[in-house]
Order: sequence, then structure tokens, then C-alpha cells
Amino acid sequence: MILMDGKALAEKIYTELHEEVSKSAKKYRLAVILVGENAVIEKFVEKKKKIGEHIGVDVRVYHFPESISATELRKRIAEIVHEEKNSGVIIQLPLPSHIEKQSILNAVVPEKDVDVLSARAVGNFSVGKSRVAPTVVGAIQELFREYKIDVKGKTVAILGAGALVGKPVATWILKESSVVTVITEETKNPEGILRGADIIISGIGKPGYITGDMVKDGVVVVDAGTSESEGKIRGDVDFDSVSKKASYLTPVPGGIGPLTVAMIFKNLLALARR
Amino acid sequence: MILMDGKALAEKIYTELHEEVSKSAKKYRLAVILVGENAVIEKFVEKKKKIGEHIGVDVRVYHFPESISATELRKRIAEIVHEEKNSGVIIQLPLPSHIEKQSILNAVVPEKDVDVLSARAVGNFSVGKSRVAPTVVGAIQELFREYKIDVKGKTVAILGAGALVGKPVATWILKESSVVTVITEETKNPEGILRGADIIISGIGKPGYITGDMVKDGVVVVDAGTSESEGKIRGDVDFDSVSKKASYLTPVPGGIGPLTVAMIFKNLLALARR
Repeated sequence: MILMDGKALAEKIYTELHEEVSKSAKKYRLAVILVGENAVIEKFVEKKKKIGEHIGVDVRVYHFPESISATELRKRIAEIVHEEKNSGVIIQLPLPSHIEKQSILNAVVPEKDVDVLSARAVGNFSVGKSRVAPTVVGAIQELFREYKIDVKGKTVAILGAGALVGKPVATWILKESSVVTVITEETKNPEGILRGADIIISGIGKPGYITGDMVKDGVVVVDAGTSESEGKIRGDVDFDSVSKKASYLTPVPGGIGPLTVAMIFKNLLALARR
Repeated sequence: MILMDGKALAEKIYTELHEEVSKSAKKYRLAVILVGENAVIEKFVEKKKKIGEHIGVDVRVYHFPESISATELRKRIAEIVHEEKNSGVIIQLPLPSHIEKQSILNAVVPEKDVDVLSARAVGNFSVGKSRVAPTVVGAIQELFREYKIDVKGKTVAILGAGALVGKPVATWILKESSVVTVITEETKNPEGILRGADIIISGIGKPGYITGDMVKDGVVVVDAGTSESEGKIRGDVDFDSVSKKASYLTPVPGGIGPLTVAMIFKNLLALARR
């Protein structure tokens, strides 16, 4: 079994991005919209700041109180998006529950939508008119390129149909002429589908859900299902049992997670390059 | 086996739309963009005109020569879209091969995009922010409502991943918590997947491709794969053999085709109602 080292690949990407930024006369700035107080989320934001410093991208955090109204937040984001110095804008999720998420995500114009989560950016990606891919898709594409895994003609099972993993991954895989099956909570026989899959991409956030007896020998497993339990980051895959059967597997942590962050910066530069 | 009568259902929808138009003080106009000369396509346009007359919607055809440049066509479409009297705009496909299709489809604003084919409309639909569904999705939803077929928890096989059928249907089914498998030309064992499906939705345009031995007893089959051979409209389904096993089946012609046209007018009114 080959462990797909997302962390090492992310470092490689940062080295390339750092080189590009160093050579460029342009200044790059990533605007991060943060709403409310949450220690875990703020840790993620700190991490992005550090990475930005490392590669030469200014990461500016716009912090709003939890009590802000959706209307006010949209207005403020529109200003931040409009600000020329901001090359890209991301909305740090989750947002407080009183704010309707999609209307806020839609406040980012596609030209600055690093996360590809606004309706317009999703549409552009869906019809093949986007210069950047949703970060999780980009992350998996980088991994598959590095480890020479071809999705064409493969049977791919996607676990979960969420906006961050399942949906964008399905949109991508559909373009690759593979067989895609999306498994959700209503699926009666997920094991049968998982066992038939050449490639499994999971993003459900159920720690250890996929066990070795659910997969076939030689399967490629991408675990994009980060959840936190008792202060430990865990994936959807039961590592011990699945690693005995898989040919390629991403660890959690150190797999898709760091690569998804790297794709934020890669997308930022790709959008700003124009 | 119950034949799902799309033609009869379309008539029912036209009666409702006619009633709505009659009661309304509003004038509705559907702009149809037609490029080049093609007898078959012009016949389709004529049909839309007749339906429009029947329900009280003005159908105005804007006919451009095949030699028009993409830039000029986009400009003209922008004017047509801008024209207040046009409640909705459709681009009659296919376009001449020298014109890049998606950039033309993107010239229609979501508020008037009856076909839901511009990147913005596709994105809105994908994130759940569209008041109308792509016409083929709407057509299947109408049928399933009429014949009380529930997709929730079902195993659905979609044949083809094109922009007109496979992709929008997959986007919809993904939201319904079903198991979706999309089959394309690269799929090694399509029969195995088809045989496991509770519902098959086909849009590949290969006459008679799906035969009775490929499906399980009691399957629901929606044939959205119109093709023309020797002047006869044919579907993807081999009717004689599949009708012996299916519980519900759409005929071709008289199934999804007329309903898709009905959805153009239903969407037009839904968008203009605002």
C-alpha cells in the first residue's frame, strides 16, 4: 500500500508558489471573512496566515461579530471583494446559523472566488468555463497526477453529496468519463457499491466509517472526510483495516486536508495572474 | 406496464398555463434565437410558435445567418435579452460548429434563462437557488409527480453525461438522496449497472440501445434520448423488449419530448411572474 502524502505534496506546491510570487512584480492578497468567535476556526485562519507569510501572500482577516445581519455582512463583503488589493476572497465556514450560507457565498465574484463556492463560480466550473477548480477537486487532481492514478473508465464511488466534497467531486468525475456512484444516507446497500469501486472518495465526516471489509483489494481511497473528536482529527476511513487492502490511501491528517489549503493559494495566484 | 403519457401531461400543463395567461394582465413573450438554415430545427421552432399561440404567449423568432460571428451574435443576443418585452430567451441548439456554444448560452441572464443553460443559471440550480429547473429535469419531475414515483432512496442509473440530459438530471438526483450512477461510453459494464437500477434515465441518443435483458423486472425507465433515423423519431430504449419488464416507461415519441417543450413555457411564466 502506498500512502499518498498530501502534506509533502502541499510543501512542493508552496515552494513553486513562493518562487512564482518572488519573481512577480504583483502583490497578492487573500481576504478571509471570519464571522463570530470559534477557537478551532481561528486556528485554521492562523495557519493560512502563516502559509501566506511563507510564500509571500498577504493574508488579511476581516473579522465580524456573530451578531452581524446577513444584509450587513453581504454589503461589507461586496466592499471587500471590490477592494482592488484583495486578489481573492474566502468566506471561512461554518457561518453562524442565523445567516443563510449560499447568499453570503454568492457575494464573491467568480474572478476572486478562490473556493469556487458562489453560484456563479459553481456554474462556470460545471459548464467547463472556470480557470480554477473547487479546492477539494484540485487537491485530488494534484494527488492523482503525482501518483499517476487515472480516473478515466474507472468505477468511482463518492460518499456524501455535500457542497464541499461530494457535489464538486461528482461534477469533476462526470467529465472524466468514469462511472460515478454517489452514496448518501438513504443508500440501502452502500457496502455493495463500495466493494465494486476502483476508487473511493469520501467526504461524510463519520470517523472510521469505511472499514476493510467494505472495499475490494487494490482500491484507491481518498479520505476527504475530516472530523474532530476529542481534539483529534479523524477521517472517514478506518486506517488499520483499509490500509491492508488499498493500493493507494490518503492519511488523515496529512492527506487531503493540507492539499485543500494549498489549492486556496494556488487558485488565488491562478485567478490573479490574469 | 404503465405507459407514462408525456403528451397528455403536456396538454394538461398547457391548459393550466393558458388559464394563467388569460387571467393575467401581463404579456408574455418568448424570444427564440435561431442561427442558420435547418429544416428540422425550423420545424421545432414552428411547433413552439403554435404552442405559444395556443396558450397566449407570443413566440418571436430572431433568425441569424449561419455566417454570423460569435462576437456579433453575443452582442445581438444581449440586446434581445435586454428588450423588456422578451420575458424569456432560448438559444435554439445546435449552433453552427464555428460558434462556441457555451459563450453564447452565457449571454442569457438567469432571470430570462428559460432553458437553464447559461453558466449562471446552471450554478444557481446547482446550489439550490433557481426558481426553475432545467427543462428535462422539470419534465421528469412532472411525470414522477403524476405517476407517483418517488426517487428518494432509489438506485438511479443515468445513461450519458451531456449538458442537456445527463448532467442536469444528475445534479437533481444528487439532491434527492438517491444512489446515482452515471454511465458513459467508457463504462466497462453498463449492463451490470443498468440491471441493478430501480430507475433508468437515458439521454445518449443511441436508438434502441437499452434492451429488455439489460433491465430488472419492475424498473422505471425514462427515455430522454431522442434521435432521428430515416425520418423517424426514436429513443434509446428498445420498446418491445423493455416494455415486457418495466413497471413504468415513457414512449418515444410522446414521452419526455413534449414535456420538455411544455417546461419551456412553464419556466417562462415562472420567471416572468416575479
